[in-house]
Amino acid sequence: MVYLDHASAMPVDPRVLAYLRDHGDALCGNPSSLHSVGLAARRELEAARGRVAALINAPVSSSIVFTAGATEANNLAIRGTAERNQKHGKTIAVSAIEHISIINPAKYLVKQGFELATVPVDADGLVSPDVLAGLMTPDTTVVSINYANDEIGTIEPVRELARLVHEEEHRYLHVNATAAGGRIPIDVQSDEIDLLTLSSSDLGGPRGAGALYVAPGVRLQTVMPGGGQERGLRSGTENLPAIAGMGEAARIAGGEMEQESRRQQKIRDALIAGIGGIGETYLTGHPRLRLPNHASFRFGRIEGESILLNMDTLFGIQVATGSACTSQTLEPSHVLLAIGLTHEEAHGSMIMTTGRDTAEEAAPGVIDAVRQTVERLRALSPL
Amino acid sequence: MVYLDHASAMPVDPRVLAYLRDHGDALCGNPSSLHSVGLAARRELEAARGRVAALINAPVSSSIVFTAGATEANNLAIRGTAERNQKHGKTIAVSAIEHISIINPAKYLVKQGFELATVPVDADGLVSPDVLAGLMTPDTTVVSINYANDEIGTIEPVRELARLVHEEEHRYLHVNATAAGGRIPIDVQSDEIDLLTLSSSDLGGPRGAGALYVAPGVRLQTVMPGGGQERGLRSGTENLPAIAGMGEAARIAGGEMEQESRRQQKIRDALIAGIGGIGETYLTGHPRLRLPNHASFRFGRIEGESILLNMDTLFGIQVATGSACTSQTLEPSHVLLAIGLTHEEAHGSMIMTTGRDTAEEAAPGVIDAVRQTVERLRALSPL
Repeated sequence: MVYLDHASAMPVDPRVLAYLRDHGDALCGNPSSLHSVGLAARRELEAARGRVAALINAPVSSSIVFTAGATEANNLAIRGTAERNQKHGKTIAVSAIEHISIINPAKYLVKQGFELATVPVDADGLVSPDVLAGLMTPDTTVVSINYANDEIGTIEPVRELARLVHEEEHRYLHVNATAAGGRIPIDVQSDEIDLLTLSSSDLGGPRGAGALYVAPGVRLQTVMPGGGQERGLRSGTENLPAIAGMGEAARIAGGEMEQESRRQQKIRDALIAGIGGIGETYLTGHPRLRLPNHASFRFGRIEGESILLNMDTLFGIQVATGSACTSQTLEPSHVLLAIGLTHEEAHGSMIMTTGRDTAEEAAPGVIDAVRQTVERLRALSPL
Repeated sequence: MVYLDHASAMPVDPRVLAYLRDHGDALCGNPSSLHSVGLAARRELEAARGRVAALINAPVSSSIVFTAGATEANNLAIRGTAERNQKHGKTIAVSAIEHISIINPAKYLVKQGFELATVPVDADGLVSPDVLAGLMTPDTTVVSINYANDEIGTIEPVRELARLVHEEEHRYLHVNATAAGGRIPIDVQSDEIDLLTLSSSDLGGPRGAGALYVAPGVRLQTVMPGGGQERGLRSGTENLPAIAGMGEAARIAGGEMEQESRRQQKIRDALIAGIGGIGETYLTGHPRLRLPNHASFRFGRIEGESILLNMDTLFGIQVATGSACTSQTLEPSHVLLAIGLTHEEAHGSMIMTTGRDTAEEAAPGVIDAVRQTVERLRALSPL
């Protein structure tokens, strides 16, 4: 079996599991309890906060707000910031290739009377600074651009975009770094990012934890009222094992990012070269400015879903054809439409995402399996 | 060490951990992925849904919506139902002893123009059917009453209250069963409950999962827009290990509820008899209609926090003095004020909650430790 769908679900790093095992006693308490069991839990919570802060060079660890995952962090960033700052403006600008957990909260705001401006991207999936500059108005308070896209791998010029966003006071840049976190270096201070989303699972940590970085001075309101945990921004007893695991995963990812990215990039480049050599096969996303673990394609005359099922059944290789989060719908990917593909072209999509557990030796076999699958499906196709 | 703070954080049942270990391969996928790894994950998700449904005799397993925990389930129940049904009325009625994760979402709705009616309780913490009947109006759409209270243990007459709530069409009863779930029998069908909250952790499952039972026909809207998981009611990749663990915990809790409740009730009754014999010590909550694992008291002339710290430091016994979720504030418990205690009386509170890991033999030692602690603190007290 070769699992190449790390963007949908990444296995927990064995070292994270070992950490959780070794720290089990300290992780079973409620960080809000006043006794020794609670205090031990509180220390683990704050240690994890420090580790996540370090991964993105956050100025203070208190700028990290733990949530139950990236979707909740995105909701908090978009809705919490827009609602809290509505006296400064009621327009939010969101790139056309944002994850559905950003687009749908934005649409939710539209129902409350906000305006939504969609920032187009070019054929490689890049947001142009000029286009963004021309689109923002004094009414724009929140701009959301992904650090890197989970479907096409393209890395955005975040630093340049941030500078433009900040030409107006009370305008905040949210960056979804779910796909980028732990894979490419992120520095929220030199990038001048106001809000940044991370997911535990995408770092190799357990599911059930995410984080929103909130730069000092940025004001937002909770979208989950209750006991007032996480500085009042996210209520609910902290999922401490998941959070501690996220902290350890962040530490590990930060430590070996350079070496591991280089290793996975080799696999990526082999896949792109090999699969790109199959007829009527096109890379999606930027050829160079892309995640080191991300290879995505579209194939003429075949459906992505057929490729996925054939690869899985005949070769034991798991790939994706779009974001798992929108796989239940039959609609073509909004990301692929945004880079200019037709509906038909968008349906021929395949995404491969590697992880720490992906061996370099796997690439030739995978390329061969794709070639056989594509040839087989095209032979069956009436087109 | 004797840990008597299961209401704040309950250790995960070792059998749940064994289940997660044995099913690890099926739990690592994303249930929305279309390949075999995703399908295995989907099967585990639906199996867990069935197990949670069975614990409360839900008519169909699809009436269970998984969330990240009880706070999110309470938010979804209160806000999601009130907002979705506002054409029928804009008043919500919430008992005075509800958990803060219900009271604060209710206050959030007040800011959006809803009316909040607080349902008072008697000195034992019971909601009187007559009082509730007199308080609801045709404008009332959501009523929220806990099945049992986490601070004073009192079990409410839910079935009787439900009948009153349903005298009006488009009026829904939400029941927070976080403390009651798995400890006393719950039958959402014969109780005629519309919405019911459960927490994985309180069943002996992992943290990071909760569930909202939504009776067929009850309409509500999401409070977490995104990828549209959980029938569109709760977006975000499902935290499958936590959910599967919750399912297994529900199965275990259901199977041994009778025997385990009887066992813990003996410990509870020993604690109530022994500690009740200490001078100026009063049981809080109902003397009979109370959770089998819950013993709560107030002590004259001592602060609950001093008792907690002394018990922890000198005897290695962990107790609570209020809900952990509100422990960061110095305010007296709203639950204790609601049953008629003064601010001063409310500050002398202590809560003991047992679990499956609590040995019957522990009771005499605990009682002795409380007696010594109380005598010591009273000797030091200037009062």
